[in-house]
Amino acid sequence: MKINRYLAGAAMMLPTLAFGQDARKPNIIFMLIDDMGWLDSTVGYGEEDYPYNLRHNTPNMKKLAERGTIFTNAYACPLSSPTRTSLMSGMNAAHTRITNFTTAFPGIPSDGTHKPEVLKDDILVHPEWNWHGISPRDSVSHTAYMTPMAKILKDNGYYTIHIGKGHMATATTPAASSYNLGFCVAAAGQLVGKPLSYSAKDNYGNYKDRWTGYNTMNLTEYYGSDTHLTEALTIEAKKALEFPVKNNIPFYLYLAHHAVHTPIQPDPRFADRYLEQGFDQGQSAFASLVEGVDKSLGDILDYVDANGIADNTIIVFMSDNGGNSENKAKGGVPHTQNLPLREGKASCYEGGVRVPMMVYWPGKTAAGTRLNTPVIAEDLFPTIIEMAGIKDYQTVQQLDGKSLVRLITDGSQLAKKAMDEGKIKNQKEATDFVIDESVSGLPLDRELVFHFPHQWKPYPLEDIDYMTAMRKGDWKIIYRHRTGKLELYNLKDDLGEKTDLSGKNKKKLKEMASVLSNKLRGWNAVMPTFRSTGKQIPYPDEICK
Amino acid sequence: MKINRYLAGAAMMLPTLAFGQDARKPNIIFMLIDDMGWLDSTVGYGEEDYPYNLRHNTPNMKKLAERGTIFTNAYACPLSSPTRTSLMSGMNAAHTRITNFTTAFPGIPSDGTHKPEVLKDDILVHPEWNWHGISPRDSVSHTAYMTPMAKILKDNGYYTIHIGKGHMATATTPAASSYNLGFCVAAAGQLVGKPLSYSAKDNYGNYKDRWTGYNTMNLTEYYGSDTHLTEALTIEAKKALEFPVKNNIPFYLYLAHHAVHTPIQPDPRFADRYLEQGFDQGQSAFASLVEGVDKSLGDILDYVDANGIADNTIIVFMSDNGGNSENKAKGGVPHTQNLPLREGKASCYEGGVRVPMMVYWPGKTAAGTRLNTPVIAEDLFPTIIEMAGIKDYQTVQQLDGKSLVRLITDGSQLAKKAMDEGKIKNQKEATDFVIDESVSGLPLDRELVFHFPHQWKPYPLEDIDYMTAMRKGDWKIIYRHRTGKLELYNLKDDLGEKTDLSGKNKKKLKEMASVLSNKLRGWNAVMPTFRSTGKQIPYPDEICK
Repeated sequence: MKINRYLAGAAMMLPTLAFGQDARKPNIIFMLIDDMGWLDSTVGYGEEDYPYNLRHNTPNMKKLAERGTIFTNAYACPLSSPTRTSLMSGMNAAHTRITNFTTAFPGIPSDGTHKPEVLKDDILVHPEWNWHGISPRDSVSHTAYMTPMAKILKDNGYYTIHIGKGHMATATTPAASSYNLGFCVAAAGQLVGKPLSYSAKDNYGNYKDRWTGYNTMNLTEYYGSDTHLTEALTIEAKKALEFPVKNNIPFYLYLAHHAVHTPIQPDPRFADRYLEQGFDQGQSAFASLVEGVDKSLGDILDYVDANGIADNTIIVFMSDNGGNSENKAKGGVPHTQNLPLREGKASCYEGGVRVPMMVYWPGKTAAGTRLNTPVIAEDLFPTIIEMAGIKDYQTVQQLDGKSLVRLITDGSQLAKKAMDEGKIKNQKEATDFVIDESVSGLPLDRELVFHFPHQWKPYPLEDIDYMTAMRKGDWKIIYRHRTGKLELYNLKDDLGEKTDLSGKNKKKLKEMASVLSNKLRGWNAVMPTFRSTGKQIPYPDEICK
Repeated sequence: MKINRYLAGAAMMLPTLAFGQDARKPNIIFMLIDDMGWLDSTVGYGEEDYPYNLRHNTPNMKKLAERGTIFTNAYACPLSSPTRTSLMSGMNAAHTRITNFTTAFPGIPSDGTHKPEVLKDDILVHPEWNWHGISPRDSVSHTAYMTPMAKILKDNGYYTIHIGKGHMATATTPAASSYNLGFCVAAAGQLVGKPLSYSAKDNYGNYKDRWTGYNTMNLTEYYGSDTHLTEALTIEAKKALEFPVKNNIPFYLYLAHHAVHTPIQPDPRFADRYLEQGFDQGQSAFASLVEGVDKSLGDILDYVDANGIADNTIIVFMSDNGGNSENKAKGGVPHTQNLPLREGKASCYEGGVRVPMMVYWPGKTAAGTRLNTPVIAEDLFPTIIEMAGIKDYQTVQQLDGKSLVRLITDGSQLAKKAMDEGKIKNQKEATDFVIDESVSGLPLDRELVFHFPHQWKPYPLEDIDYMTAMRKGDWKIIYRHRTGKLELYNLKDDLGEKTDLSGKNKKKLKEMASVLSNKLRGWNAVMPTFRSTGKQIPYPDEICK
């Protein structure tokens, strides 16, 4: 077994700016939202404001954006488990081979086997992926063996807390328990991808007829009450923080909300005002879930302020994938809710993988800035480890993510300087402003890969199923497995991925196909096979020679 | 609301013995076994060895007894929830008014309401007790409002861990979550009184058909494996200890095993050897559960040794009530398994309330000693707080328990001295040796009250249901609510409560009846009423005038 040793040289090479002289380890709060789209808040991630998002009431997200820095080109995987396991492993999903969502029961992957009759594709057979998720122990069937980020933090004195959704592994495997991932406290969590209900009136779905009485104790106190699940998780997070805050122990809080995933139920605290504004039932329910998450963020910010730790607490805010554009319960017109982005959750088009992301690092991030460098979920692993001041650590896996620390600190300060000097006067200029690799350590044309060799739903979805994509600079290649078609887009001019340039720019297509293929080969990524021949589908560079 | 302030003067008045000069806060491990009877181990609690217990293989309990001190006259309540809530509140169960076991669902007390047809008694109507358990918040219906012991420990820098059984409250109330009781970590627990299965092959009872996939994550990693539930809880406890042990944070571990409660399933690791010895199926299954708990204790002792904290870690070992003598699955002859003690669990006779208890406090307890002073569950509250060096704390409740610290330290040292000086040469002398109140702060004739104004099972049990008892010195009074009969026993001569002296010694009976009645009145204890008149049953001193 190969052990990789990382010496975070980058941290030691940080320019001697005025900030960063505090030897206290910072607290880190990572709030991960489920299925929140890029434009589901009033935070402006794009070049222009889009009317859709401006109708959601998210003042706390706005506040965080004003305190910290926005990542306008942040990416995750198209689905929950791949992103959550990327965050915990620092690996790309094509590398973990966890390319679809994990289920509770072992041996029952989400893309078939248990329901081959509905998930059977005429052309392709899905590959044997790591459907049991990540594992901190070696040789566990269908898992990606890795050293979890939380364990490294815990081993370095961090009081690590996991509240909420897990969805990183399957029952019978070690990572089914967050305690095996290096968390000191794991509360109110579950293995699977969605809650049965957000309403405590429904006992969060644990109805008497199916609740055995042997369920997790953590949330039973709320049963029958008015406490929305998002609120309950926030309260539980604050309880878990009591000990480290009182005893000045640095903490890492991973607050993984279930919202705004299905079931799209109206949150009674907020839904009515959206109905009054003319939202349909689904839109108002969805907006109310978003506002619930916003309130949670506000409560956490208030808690941090009230406990005198605001100046030493980093807040990272992110979504696990793009907004769901397939669920009719969300209201509006399906497949349009992420406009101007194409498609949504589970798709490798921008709507599925581009996510909201903000970081506030007191004294380090420059307030109200935006960073346009493309970044991806697996970057958070080395970023958070470096934020924690951990310089020497070992992982059994080869990390794919890169630390964003220099981008977040020096980069945001440079962006602020440019604003102060009048170099950024409007959103267009803000969008065009980039931080050079010499400052951030991050090439602007770094390859970001998205890989979904699966059918998502029991019915086929043309722009979602069986797809691989890669962004590199402004260019993006899409590989559709079923048809063998390659597409090429230039996101700078065509954020909506409307104009396929593959015919026009064969040279770029070939170049992109080659880079992507080598990435997939290097990771030994799982690929579908043809039902007719049993052979693996070709790599993109075998199509575009 | 009255706030009581305790200044633990006793701690400050400790004689200046050689030990006790270490300023480090000790770690405290409290291992609570479920339904383990007084004589279910090879530890000799009585005046003589009883053949029954000597057949169980419990080398680690023996080891703990040899390292520390045995309490030969330790008491708990006749049932689980009353004891567990006494431990957490420092109150007698007649005072908390939690006199029966709590259920998962609110408004469904265990002594009727949901099944009045089976629990209906011809003569008595059960009282309205605090069937929702304890509560750290005021004004919660049918709960005893109290400041939890774990919260005081946590507030004083203890990393508090609850592993295993809760059974202190009902869903919808705050104490349904151990996080509200002051625990930093609460894992692998449940609200109710028994597991569905000890076997991971059965997913601990969370079968697919009734497991929703939304269950506690903590134990799903073991599903389908060979890991016995007792073993799983031990492993989870060790995981939870990693952070405080590594970071030198004092910890309190409350390891509340489900074993040796029903279901009496054979533990495959140990059951065969008992069958080979001629135990019947039930006896061998029960013995294997006991041996599993013994192994857990051994693993914890090994962990403490291996981590270099043995010299600063207190171990408290106790059972929550007497052995179950009513369950046929245990094998043998029902109602005899606690012999020479009369009856068992749920009864106020000695078999129901006298429990195994040992304490090992490195450097403070004298090795291999026994303490004969009668003590009771609620004593553990002020004892553990004082062990933790907490001298100034507030509780909303009036504590009934008394600190055992001076008894444990000075008392055991005196016992050792007597042994060394040849004053204790045999078990009879060991049984007769007592520690004076001037040393222990504990009168030898302190009143210990047991109160069970309920029917336990769906069928009536003559020597178990509707009973109150009090031990005071060697004397014990029993009050049978249904018949209004008072009994009097002298435990010194009649441990088995065979000879009722109430007719012979009317003066002592009257004195005991008076003391007990005043205790019940002072606590405003819940009492049954007569079905015929609707009037409360008389207090003992109204019967014996």
